[in-house]
Amino acid sequence: MKLSKKNLEGRLDHVYDAIVVGGGAGGLSAAVYLQRYRLSSLVVEKGRGRSFWMQELRNYLGLPPETPGRTLLQQGQSHLQSVGGDYLSGFVEAVEDEGETFAVTVKIGKTDPIYPVFRSKYLVSASGIIDHLPQLEDQQNVFDYAGYNLHVCMICDGYDMADQKCGLFVNSEAAIHTAFVLNWFTPYITVFTQGLCEVGQDMRDKLKAHGYPLIETPLKRFVGQNHHMSGVELTDGTTVDLETGLISMGSHYYNQYLKGLDLDWKGGNLVTDGMCRTSHPRIFALGDLKEGLNQVSIAVADGTLAATAIWRDIRRSAPPRLWEEHVSLAQHQT
Amino acid sequence: MKLSKKNLEGRLDHVYDAIVVGGGAGGLSAAVYLQRYRLSSLVVEKGRGRSFWMQELRNYLGLPPETPGRTLLQQGQSHLQSVGGDYLSGFVEAVEDEGETFAVTVKIGKTDPIYPVFRSKYLVSASGIIDHLPQLEDQQNVFDYAGYNLHVCMICDGYDMADQKCGLFVNSEAAIHTAFVLNWFTPYITVFTQGLCEVGQDMRDKLKAHGYPLIETPLKRFVGQNHHMSGVELTDGTTVDLETGLISMGSHYYNQYLKGLDLDWKGGNLVTDGMCRTSHPRIFALGDLKEGLNQVSIAVADGTLAATAIWRDIRRSAPPRLWEEHVSLAQHQT
Repeated sequence: MKLSKKNLEGRLDHVYDAIVVGGGAGGLSAAVYLQRYRLSSLVVEKGRGRSFWMQELRNYLGLPPETPGRTLLQQGQSHLQSVGGDYLSGFVEAVEDEGETFAVTVKIGKTDPIYPVFRSKYLVSASGIIDHLPQLEDQQNVFDYAGYNLHVCMICDGYDMADQKCGLFVNSEAAIHTAFVLNWFTPYITVFTQGLCEVGQDMRDKLKAHGYPLIETPLKRFVGQNHHMSGVELTDGTTVDLETGLISMGSHYYNQYLKGLDLDWKGGNLVTDGMCRTSHPRIFALGDLKEGLNQVSIAVADGTLAATAIWRDIRRSAPPRLWEEHVSLAQHQT
Repeated sequence: MKLSKKNLEGRLDHVYDAIVVGGGAGGLSAAVYLQRYRLSSLVVEKGRGRSFWMQELRNYLGLPPETPGRTLLQQGQSHLQSVGGDYLSGFVEAVEDEGETFAVTVKIGKTDPIYPVFRSKYLVSASGIIDHLPQLEDQQNVFDYAGYNLHVCMICDGYDMADQKCGLFVNSEAAIHTAFVLNWFTPYITVFTQGLCEVGQDMRDKLKAHGYPLIETPLKRFVGQNHHMSGVELTDGTTVDLETGLISMGSHYYNQYLKGLDLDWKGGNLVTDGMCRTSHPRIFALGDLKEGLNQVSIAVADGTLAATAIWRDIRRSAPPRLWEEHVSLAQHQT
C-alpha cells in the first residue's frame, strides 16, 4: 500500500524481505517480481528521477513510442499496489548493515520531516542518476526543452536527431569525444563548451577536420517555443540556429547512502554479477547505478534478475512446505 | 514494412544489417533498436510462439497485468513499422555463413510455398522455445486451459497458484523435482506422470514425506469450463479435483537452422557473452534460446544489448561523417 507519515504503524516493526531504493523502472520491476515471489517489499522513491523527465519513451517494447516516462512509472506503481507492495515517497538518508538486516533511515516530508527507520533482509539499490544540465540564469528555460528535442541520451534519442543541425553541450574536453559517435546520427554538429573547460589544440584540429564548429562563449538561453528548441542565444548576444541538441555533461549518481558500505565500485558504477548482486551478498544494484547501458529495458530486466536471486536465497534457506494432511496419512500407512 | 510473397522486390538484392529470426518480445525489441540505430533489419516470424499463447502478461513493467502476450506483440510490430523495419511471416529453413554475409532461406506460405533467400551481415536468433504439453486424444482440450489457469512457467505464474490445489504434470522423474520448488507457492501438489516415466523408490519416498500424491494413470482430459480448469479425468474414469496446474514437460527449442553453424551450446541453450553475442562474432542469441531466465523482460533487454553491440561493430568500421561544408571552409582557412 501507499505509505505516508500517517500510516506507518506495523511497518516499523516489520522486517521486509527487501527494501528497494528508487521507484524508477528498475526498482518497480524488482518490487513487482518480489511481491509475486511472495516476498515483502518496500519501494522508497524520492521523486523526479530520469524516467520521470522523459517526454517520450521511444524504445521500450510494448508501449507506444510517444508514451511519457511518467506513464510507465504510474502503471508500475499501480501494478505494485495490485500485488500488495509498499510504496513510500521519501529520501533514503542512510543505510546501516546490522548483520542480518539493514536499517534504512528515510526522510519523509519537506516541512516537519520525520526520519523513521525501516528494516529489511536485502537491499536493492535502484536510485539511478540525474543528468547534469546547463546552468542558466533562468533555469526554467532549460526545463522547457530538456526531454523534448534537447536530449540527454544519444542511445535513446540519436534516431530522433538524424541529419539535424545539432548542438552538443559539454562541460569537459573528454565529453567532446561524444561528437565522434554522435556523427553516426548527424554530421551537422556544433560543440558548445559554455566556457566551462579548456580545449587543447589536438581536439581543435580534430573538430576542424570533421567540420564541427566549436563555440566557447557561455549560453544565455535556449531559444524556441512550445518545448521545441530552435537554437541558442550566447552571452555576447549572437544566436546560433539549431534543430536539436544533446547535453553531454555527465551525471550525478544517487548513491550517497551506499558510501559507508564495503562495495566494489568502478567509477561511479557498482560492480555486479550476472544477477545484479554487488560484492555484498545482500545488496543488489540495478539500472543506471551499475555498469552497462542506461536503458529502461535493461533496468526492468535487472529488477527481474535481482528479485529472482533474492527469492532463490530465501527459498533455499526456508523449510519445505508439506501437505500436512497427506503426510500424517502417509506416516499412518507406513 | 510488412513483406509477403508479393512484395519482395528489392529485398532479395539488399544486404540487411541484421536478420532477426523470431518476432517475439526479444526479436521485436532487437529490431526496433536496430532501426533506431539507423541499421536495416528484417524480422522473420513463424507465428504462435510462447508469448503469443500467454493470456495475461503478469510481470512486465509498464503494461497492466492482464495484458495478453498478443497485445505486446502487436504493439511491437506496429512500433517496428513506425521506424521502418521489415517484418515477414515465414519459417527460417536454413542459414548459411558466406563469410561476410549470411544467406537465410525462408519458407513463405503454406500452400504453394516459395523459398526466397535473404542476406544480412549479422544474425539475431530470437526463435525461442515452445513448451511440451500433455498429448491427449482431443488436443483442443489442452489448448482450452493452457495459458489460463493451467500454467507452463512457475517463475511467471507461481504467484497465481498460491495455496491452491495444483496438479504438476511431468514426463520424466527429473521434472518431479519441480514440486520441491513449486511448494514455495503451494504445498497442495499432486504429481501426474501420465504413465510417461518410471519413478524410483527414493522419489516415491520423498513425495510421500512431503504429502504430495503421485498419480501415474494417464490423463483422459482436463475438466472445467470457460477456460477455467477444475480438475482432470483419468483413463480409468476417476477424477481428481484441482484449482490450478503447472505443466513441466520440457520444451522444444526452435534452433534447427543454427545446427550447421559452429556455435557453443550448453544443453539446448546458446552460450553468449554479456551483450548476447554467441561464440560466432556475427551471431547473437536472445531470450529463451540462450542461458538464463525465460522472461519477457529479459528477452526485451537482450534485444537492446544485441542491437547495441551490432551498432557498435558497424559504426566503428564506418568512415566518420564530416560536415562537408565546414571542412572545405576549414581547409580553405588553413
